[in-house]
Parts: sequence; structure tokens; C-alpha cells
Amino acid sequence: MPNSDAKPAYTELTRHYLRLHRYQHLAALAWWDRNAMMPPKGATARAAAEAELQTLIHRQRTDPRLKEWIGAAAAEPLDELERANLREIRRDWRDANALPESLVEAKTLAGARCEHEWRRQRPANDWNGFLENFREVVRLAREEARLLAEASGLAPYDALMDRYEPGMTSADTDRLFADLKTWLPGLIAKVQAKQAGETLIRPAGPFPRAAQRALSLAILERLDFDFEAGRLDESTHPFSGGVPEDVRLTTRYREDDFLQSLMGSIHETGHARYEQNLPREWLGQPLGLARSYGIHESQSLSFEMQLARGEGFVQILSPLLAEHFGAQPAFAPDNLERLLTRAAPGLIRVAADEVTYPAHIILRYEIERPLVEGSIEPDDIPTLWAEKTEHLLGLDVRGNYGDGCLQDVHWTEGAFGYFPSYTLGAMYAAQWFAALRRRTPELDGRIAAGDLAPVFDWLRENIWSQASRWETPELVRRASGEDLNPRHFREHLERRYL
Amino acid sequence: MPNSDAKPAYTELTRHYLRLHRYQHLAALAWWDRNAMMPPKGATARAAAEAELQTLIHRQRTDPRLKEWIGAAAAEPLDELERANLREIRRDWRDANALPESLVEAKTLAGARCEHEWRRQRPANDWNGFLENFREVVRLAREEARLLAEASGLAPYDALMDRYEPGMTSADTDRLFADLKTWLPGLIAKVQAKQAGETLIRPAGPFPRAAQRALSLAILERLDFDFEAGRLDESTHPFSGGVPEDVRLTTRYREDDFLQSLMGSIHETGHARYEQNLPREWLGQPLGLARSYGIHESQSLSFEMQLARGEGFVQILSPLLAEHFGAQPAFAPDNLERLLTRAAPGLIRVAADEVTYPAHIILRYEIERPLVEGSIEPDDIPTLWAEKTEHLLGLDVRGNYGDGCLQDVHWTEGAFGYFPSYTLGAMYAAQWFAALRRRTPELDGRIAAGDLAPVFDWLRENIWSQASRWETPELVRRASGEDLNPRHFREHLERRYL
Repeated sequence: MPNSDAKPAYTELTRHYLRLHRYQHLAALAWWDRNAMMPPKGATARAAAEAELQTLIHRQRTDPRLKEWIGAAAAEPLDELERANLREIRRDWRDANALPESLVEAKTLAGARCEHEWRRQRPANDWNGFLENFREVVRLAREEARLLAEASGLAPYDALMDRYEPGMTSADTDRLFADLKTWLPGLIAKVQAKQAGETLIRPAGPFPRAAQRALSLAILERLDFDFEAGRLDESTHPFSGGVPEDVRLTTRYREDDFLQSLMGSIHETGHARYEQNLPREWLGQPLGLARSYGIHESQSLSFEMQLARGEGFVQILSPLLAEHFGAQPAFAPDNLERLLTRAAPGLIRVAADEVTYPAHIILRYEIERPLVEGSIEPDDIPTLWAEKTEHLLGLDVRGNYGDGCLQDVHWTEGAFGYFPSYTLGAMYAAQWFAALRRRTPELDGRIAAGDLAPVFDWLRENIWSQASRWETPELVRRASGEDLNPRHFREHLERRYL
Repeated sequence: MPNSDAKPAYTELTRHYLRLHRYQHLAALAWWDRNAMMPPKGATARAAAEAELQTLIHRQRTDPRLKEWIGAAAAEPLDELERANLREIRRDWRDANALPESLVEAKTLAGARCEHEWRRQRPANDWNGFLENFREVVRLAREEARLLAEASGLAPYDALMDRYEPGMTSADTDRLFADLKTWLPGLIAKVQAKQAGETLIRPAGPFPRAAQRALSLAILERLDFDFEAGRLDESTHPFSGGVPEDVRLTTRYREDDFLQSLMGSIHETGHARYEQNLPREWLGQPLGLARSYGIHESQSLSFEMQLARGEGFVQILSPLLAEHFGAQPAFAPDNLERLLTRAAPGLIRVAADEVTYPAHIILRYEIERPLVEGSIEPDDIPTLWAEKTEHLLGLDVRGNYGDGCLQDVHWTEGAFGYFPSYTLGAMYAAQWFAALRRRTPELDGRIAAGDLAPVFDWLRENIWSQASRWETPELVRRASGEDLNPRHFREHLERRYL
């Protein structure tokens, strides 16, 4: 508890942000319910209720008293954690106040319209129809970037990215992605050539939904998901939501393919355990929040990619699969490992494997950044998309917008600057496991023997318990002993896939 | 849409109450989730978030501008529906402003403490322990009644009852219950004597949960529950919650007894269809709300008691039971009808049948009213409870507090004035069906043939579509052609049970 006499402004700030945190609890609940539970006719009333709540949250974040409190708190005798909290409060306040309400509303409206029409336009391959709404989305995103840049002193694209990856700049991203581009296309080709010669037994379905759900629950349990502090339900698009004290995961079941729900559940459990293990004593303040989208993704990818597709974990998976679906040759550990590391270029990002995924992200980054900066226009996207798909993945997507530049929801809603987080997450995850292997050289053997404690202990100590105490670069250095270094991701892929 | 130029104050009021409605949407969602979905470790954070929302709702209902707007709106050119809405707004405002915030807080705290301890005290039969907390609950309820009486001009107990049954007084209730008391104990005795000679085949379980859930869903479907505008889940205490556009029902399954979930689901569907059929164009305003707790209960009891335990409906139930559990002699229509109308005095209200239920209510009413008025004290309750249980039900409950005066949650939280709504609901339901039978004399045959339209049409026309347009007595007269008349309830019981 802060001593409120000695730091009155800081105390006011913590009270104010605690109230905001409670409003956001309600917003998280309404969001989860809308996506996992709500029947269709509830949509209109819910949209109105959620909008009312967002108005309230916006008013709370733009309260005119905040400016004064933030200024005064800086001169108060705060300890190191309080200073970190003040830093996070200041960033939240700066972002919330950078944009006039009229722009926020226009952006919400234009994004909703574009997204709504896109649902129909994507299957209809209707790029020109999409463009009509999308031009306005881009125009507003540029305006947003300009205002956020003004408030933060960052470059416009960097100011957008900063909302997802505070402290990460496009200069950093350029450097990381430039490195990736030197070796990724070659690696993809080599992996394909190698895997072409392998024998692979495909699992024979169908896999009943009830058995898949039981398997997902068993895996969550195995990964120490706390069922007293969370749930697993179903939704069209799997996600991890809720609040740290009560994390709501979803998955979806396809009877012809159990891997989608299984690996999806493992992925979301990575997000969930981060949230479930954020320090309880900091909850309610910005200090207690997860660090960034990229760090969050590093947890889901630590679970799904680093841990669950590795040679050790198939020893855990193999008997679980036999138990839930009956034994079959495809579930033998060796075959399972080949199945979980199968890689091949494809057009669709969300279906991509670990090796080819970064190509999809580089492609999007290299388009959205100049788009926000104004050096290209929405009309230029399909040509650029086709060129980069050819170059990075060796595939021809010309004329196929639905599986090309119309495939993602992010841009329809104006969420520019988000995509890099996915590949930053993969790089962070590889770097975590490199550090973890230095500490626990026998890691794969421990995992194969069913002992996951070294993984969870390392993540808890270095990531989960740190919440937003450090800015990202500092967190990375403290956790792994060095700055973000794409070498670890490369070495991980080469070791696993070559 | 109101013409805002001609009625500026009324327009402000509708805007204000629309916002309140949206906050209440979120409160309803959080409440449903807490009772049907939330894992235990989510409780503390949720309690804080819900309290924050209740603070906001209270602030909205006590906004100082409301007084002026309500006064000015009365002089504006409002149509009949707007006048009804203004009447409901005024009542809500009056109740919200009658109590100082300190009393509301004290009441919440004392009620929560008493309820929390009661969970342990009831199974421990610990009346004296209960009394320690309960005295404070009663003290605050008396203060609340005094302040509400001052604001409304009603007598203290009437002022409490008015929150559940606006317009209903204890003079009315006395008259209705006095009539009941003249014939109910005799009727109970006669029904017992008659049923003692009947042969009854008990259903042979177990009844798997999955089959019970499928049966509940089939029954909801048969009763025209709109699954596009609601859900059925599970909870410890079944309820109907959510919002009119998205009604959330719950039930619970006991594998040795399917009747509990089946009749519970039918009961809650009665509540649900009222909500689902409130006029869409009035939603968002107090005018659009269900009329009262008693009228709400009249819908659940119309479904559960009047319709589903009647001779026609067993023709619908019988094949459904065989379909879901396999055929057995107990499911024959004649036997099923005897099973659904079995009556016998018992100590527990929530387990009581249709015939003995009113005795439990009269007992509580005759204790809580003098308790609020101060003519008896909490210490007097056990003796009174035992005397009245002997007189009304012919049972001995002396010394058994857990199955006696400690059995209900209502008083623990200070909800005095609520109990009469249950029996008023049963009387209203009997009166609705008497009117319905006058319009559709062949009703039982229609129901037996699977045609439920006469029931739903009558309820929609007379109750659901009226929302809070009329005060209760006017609604009753318009629907049934007369004031609330306990004769219909008596005739219903005599026809069905003698």
C-alpha cells in the first residue's frame, strides 16, 4: 500500500487506474461472452452496452486531472516499482489523449464498416469493393499515426507499433527482418527438399468432438493451467481472454483434424499461464499488466512451438493421443514429431508452419509501413503482395485476393503495426529457450521424462513475475543476458528442421 | 422517437435512462457469469468490478438533475406511453433517492455478512449464531422501510413490498391471504386423503445428465423459447437472467430425479418468454420492463403449474420422456399426471408442491410484516415459525431451525416484502388461465393435441406486450376483466386435486 501522505498525486493516480482496471474487467467479460457465448439476437443490445462502457473507459483515461497528477507524482518520493507504474500510466495517458474523440469515433465506424463488408468481399474475391471502404480506414490510420507521433515524438509507423510493442522501433524491426530475409527463403527450400524424402503417416479420423475436448482439457491440466482461475470454451476464432484472475480460453474442434484444436489449446495456454502468473500484488495497476503483444506471443509460442512441437514433448503427447482416440501408427513418437514439424509454403498466414510464418509477417510489414507513411497507396497493395509472395514463399497469388491481401482481419479494422509482434514473439521464444537450455542443458530429456518444471520455472522467474516492471529491451536483457537476437530463432529452426 | 423540441426534459430523461439500461445490461451479464460460469478464483476481482458498476448505477439513478427533469417533464406534452414511462422513471428515482448512500452500504455489508455466515449456520442448526448478524439486518431493514415510507407515503412494510409489487399493499395482501387461510388447510387435508388411495409408479433411474439436458432443450424448443435470443446453462440455483434480447436460463441435473431439471426448465422458460416478448420498441426505458415480481412469477407458474402439470400437457411430455430415457410404465400419461400433481405437506418451501406452497408464504408474510413494523423481534421468530407450521401444514418443526426459519436466503440479505410475490404469482396465473379458458373452452384438448398457441397468444396479448404500460391492478383488470381474485386459484386447485 502506498503511503498516501507522502505521495498524494501518485495515490490519486493509483485509485483512478484501479477504477479503470475494474471497468476493463467488465469489458473483458463482455468481449469473451460476445465471442464465446452470446446468441445472435443479443448483438445489438450488447454493442450498445459495450460502446457505453468504452465511452466510460475513454472518459476515465482522458480525465483532465490526470495531467496534473502525473506531473506532480514525478516529484514525489516513489520507489522503483512505483516509478515503473508511473511510467506505464504516463504512456497509457499519452496514447489515450493523443487522439480527439471525433477521430476515435470515425475510426471505429470506418473499421466496423470495412470489417463487416470484408466478410462478404473476401470469399467473393472483391478487391475493388474492399478498396472503397479501405481507403477511408487508411486515411484515418495515417491521421492517427500523425497525432500519436506528435504526442510521443516517434515516427508515425513507430507510433502505431508502440501501442503493441512499446519501445520497439521500425529501425529495430528493419534490422531484425533484414537478417531474417538473408537466410529464410534458403532455409524454406532446404526444409522442403529434406521433408520430401520423409515417410509420414497421417492420423486416421474422424476424431469425435467430445474426445478432442477431453484431450484439450488433459493437455491444459498437463501444462498447469489453473482451472480454478479459468475456463476452456469454444469459439469460431480461438482466443485467450478474460482477466488474470479468471482467464477464458477458447478453441474449436474439427472432426477430421484434431491437431488444430490440440495445438490451438496449447498455444492459448501459453497466453493463459502468463496472465495467471502475473504478480497478484500488482494487479489493478498498469505495472501489473503483461509487457507487450510480442512478449505475450512469446509465451504462446514457447508453449506451442518451442515446447510442444519439440522432440521431448512427443513422448508426453503420444500416450495421451492413444488414450483419447485409440492407438494408431500415426501416434508413434517419431511419426508424431515429423507430423508436428511438417513445413511447406502456403498462401494463408494462419495455416502457416513455424518455418514459413515469418515470411508472411515480413510481407505484411513491408507493405503496411510504407502504406502508413504514405509512400504507397491502397491501390498498390495487390501488386506488391503478389511480388513479395513470389519472392518470399515462391508462390503465385496474382488475381487471388481472397487468399492474398484480403485474408487478414487486422487491416480492415485499421490495426496497423500489429503484425510484427507475431514474429518478434517467435524470436523472443527462441531466445528464451536458448537461455533455458544454457541453464538446463538436459532440457529435452527432462521434458521427454514428463518434467516440465524447468520450462515453467524459467518463464515464471524471468517473464511472468516481471509483468510491466521493465521496458521490453531491459526485460529481454535481464531474462536472456542479451538484446533481442535473431540468431537464436535461426539456430532453433536449423536444429529442428535441417 | 420523442420530438425533443417540444419535450426537452422528457428527452433528457430518456437519454439518461437509456445509459442506465446499458449499465444494467453489463450488470446482468456479470451476474449471470458469476453464477453460471465463473471459476472460484475469479470471485474477488469480479466482486470489485461489480461493486464499481453498482456505484456507477447508483450515481446515475441519483443524479441531481433528475429531480428537475422529472418535474419539468410532467408539464410537457407527453402521449400516454410517455406518461407511463415518466411514472416508472419517477418511481425508480424516488426509491433510489430515498436512501442515503451510507445506509445502502451498511445494508449491503450486513446482508453479505449474514448471508455468508448463514451458509454454515443453516446446516449447523445454529439459530443463536444467526441471530447475532440478523439483528443488524433487521435494524437496517426497519430504517430502510421508514425512509422508503417517508418518500412514498406508504406504510413501512408496504414501502418494502412496493419494490417488488408496485401498487400492492399489505391491506390487499391481508384480504387475499385471509381468504386463502379459510380453505387451504382443509384442502390440503382432503388432497392428502384422496392421494393416499392412488397407485403411483415412480420413474426408475438413473437419468443421465446428457439425456436430461437434451430433454430440457427439447422442452424449451417445444415452449417456443428463442435460442437465437438466449441460452440454457447449469448453475447450483436455477434462475432466469440476462437481458430481454438475450435471456440466460440455468437448470441443474440430478441423475436420480429428472423432474427437478425438467420442471425447473419449464418454470424458467415462463420467465424467459415474458422477457423475450417484451415490446422491442420500448426496451431501454423503464416502460419496457416486466411489470413486477408477482407478474413475472405468474408467467413461470403459468408454464410450470397451469400448463405443464395439466392433463393436456402430459400427452406432450409422455412421448418426450420415452424418447429421451427409453419407455417405462411410469411415463404413461395417467401415471405422469398423478406424478406431477402429487401433493403433501413438507417443511421446505422450495420443495413444496402447488397446493401446500401458499402455506409457506402465508407463514413468512405473517412473520416478516410485524418484524418490519417492530411489533415482534428477531428472537420471537422460532416460536412463531413452529406455531404457524403446526397450524398451516400440520407439521412439528420445533428445534429444527435448519428446515425451519433458517431455510431461506431472502431474509439473510434483508429482502423483506419479497415472499408474497410467489403466491400472488400463483393467483395471477390461475386467473390468467381462467380467462384463457373462457376464451378457449376447449383448451385442454388443444394442449393435448400439441397446440400451445392459445396459451402463448393470450399471454403475449395480455401480459408480455404490455410490459410496464399499466400499473398492476389495471393490467390485471385489462387482462382478465376483474381485480385479482383468489377464487380462481381455489377453483384451479379444487378442479385439479379433488
